[in-house]
Amino acid sequence: MTGPGRFIVLEGGEGVGKSTQARLLADALRATGREVVLTREPGGTSGAEAIRGLLLNTEGEGWGMRAEALLFAAARADHVDRLIRPALARGAWVVCDRFLDSSRAYQGGGGGIDDAELLDLHRIGSQGLLPDLTLLVAVPPAVTAQRLALRDADGADRIGGRGADFHARVAARFAAIAAQEPQRYAAIDGHGDADRVHAAIMAALAPLLAGRA
Amino acid sequence: MTGPGRFIVLEGGEGVGKSTQARLLADALRATGREVVLTREPGGTSGAEAIRGLLLNTEGEGWGMRAEALLFAAARADHVDRLIRPALARGAWVVCDRFLDSSRAYQGGGGGIDDAELLDLHRIGSQGLLPDLTLLVAVPPAVTAQRLALRDADGADRIGGRGADFHARVAARFAAIAAQEPQRYAAIDGHGDADRVHAAIMAALAPLLAGRA
Repeated sequence: MTGPGRFIVLEGGEGVGKSTQARLLADALRATGREVVLTREPGGTSGAEAIRGLLLNTEGEGWGMRAEALLFAAARADHVDRLIRPALARGAWVVCDRFLDSSRAYQGGGGGIDDAELLDLHRIGSQGLLPDLTLLVAVPPAVTAQRLALRDADGADRIGGRGADFHARVAARFAAIAAQEPQRYAAIDGHGDADRVHAAIMAALAPLLAGRA
Repeated sequence: MTGPGRFIVLEGGEGVGKSTQARLLADALRATGREVVLTREPGGTSGAEAIRGLLLNTEGEGWGMRAEALLFAAARADHVDRLIRPALARGAWVVCDRFLDSSRAYQGGGGGIDDAELLDLHRIGSQGLLPDLTLLVAVPPAVTAQRLALRDADGADRIGGRGADFHARVAARFAAIAAQEPQRYAAIDGHGDADRVHAAIMAALAPLLAGRA
């Protein structure tokens, strides 16, 4: 339980359409008369956006995986403290593009940091706040590759631009996390047109919208 | 044991003369023919200096204490990984102005974060690296106040500029930490002229310099 509001997170690898779906979901929730806060990680507050700049733009040698994990946790602590918890406390629905599980998949599955350590960072930084529902959007790897190729070469950031092996480990870790706690995750097939994917997301949200979860 | 080199840290509150003493110590060690790396926290690498900029310059609302603790740990992880461990591994003596105990005193004693959580962050970020010897430099509070008054108003950063109560809690926590592990700490009286303080520091280092510790 996060408060009177509801906390919905979209997770998944690169190029699966999370940002588009987060916008469509926020619009649909607003149309029901709810207050909606649409946000993203890393970022969402001025402090966290400044950390995002440090994380995603290569400077010098970039970051080691442990410093990277701590920077994501620092950005999340600011985001939770300054934006997410206050919104939930006043009854808003928060729709967030990436959250804790991206750290578990990227720095954990991809980068080799122990999952228990990443959960420790979340406990210390954000007092362990978890979403009410996580929508795990996945598409076949070939589709991801095709979508990423359509982004400019300049469009890839320091983390998104890592190799195929890294991204395969990320996808496997997302699937493993969702399998551990099926009641808090909905698997969304991100293949096909955006309206069809949006309909699947709204169907997954039906119990929460009806106040049954 | 940190490696073939030795890791010496100067700790203490604001205006006790740590930076001056770190320079004098580094010069004295170099004069013995040793390779010396003189560094500081937060900072010491390009990444950690970028985090230092985020930490010490107020922007918007500043940082909550938990985000602040994670940012210090992130800067330290980069510093340890990129500068301190490689230097110790090749046999250098590292002289560092502030390290882990500043986080324990400022975010812990001053800011109320649990000491066990700060030690968890250090274990996760920097695999728990500890100094061979920590020189805890202290002066009477009235002397600190006088020295700080001599700095420009612009010279105080976001953390140094906090109130007297905060700095009293910081000083008390430093003393308590040193009392827990007397074999890893030397209490240095920072009152009086810099040469006298330097002589006290060299006396405290004698066992390490003689290879007896």
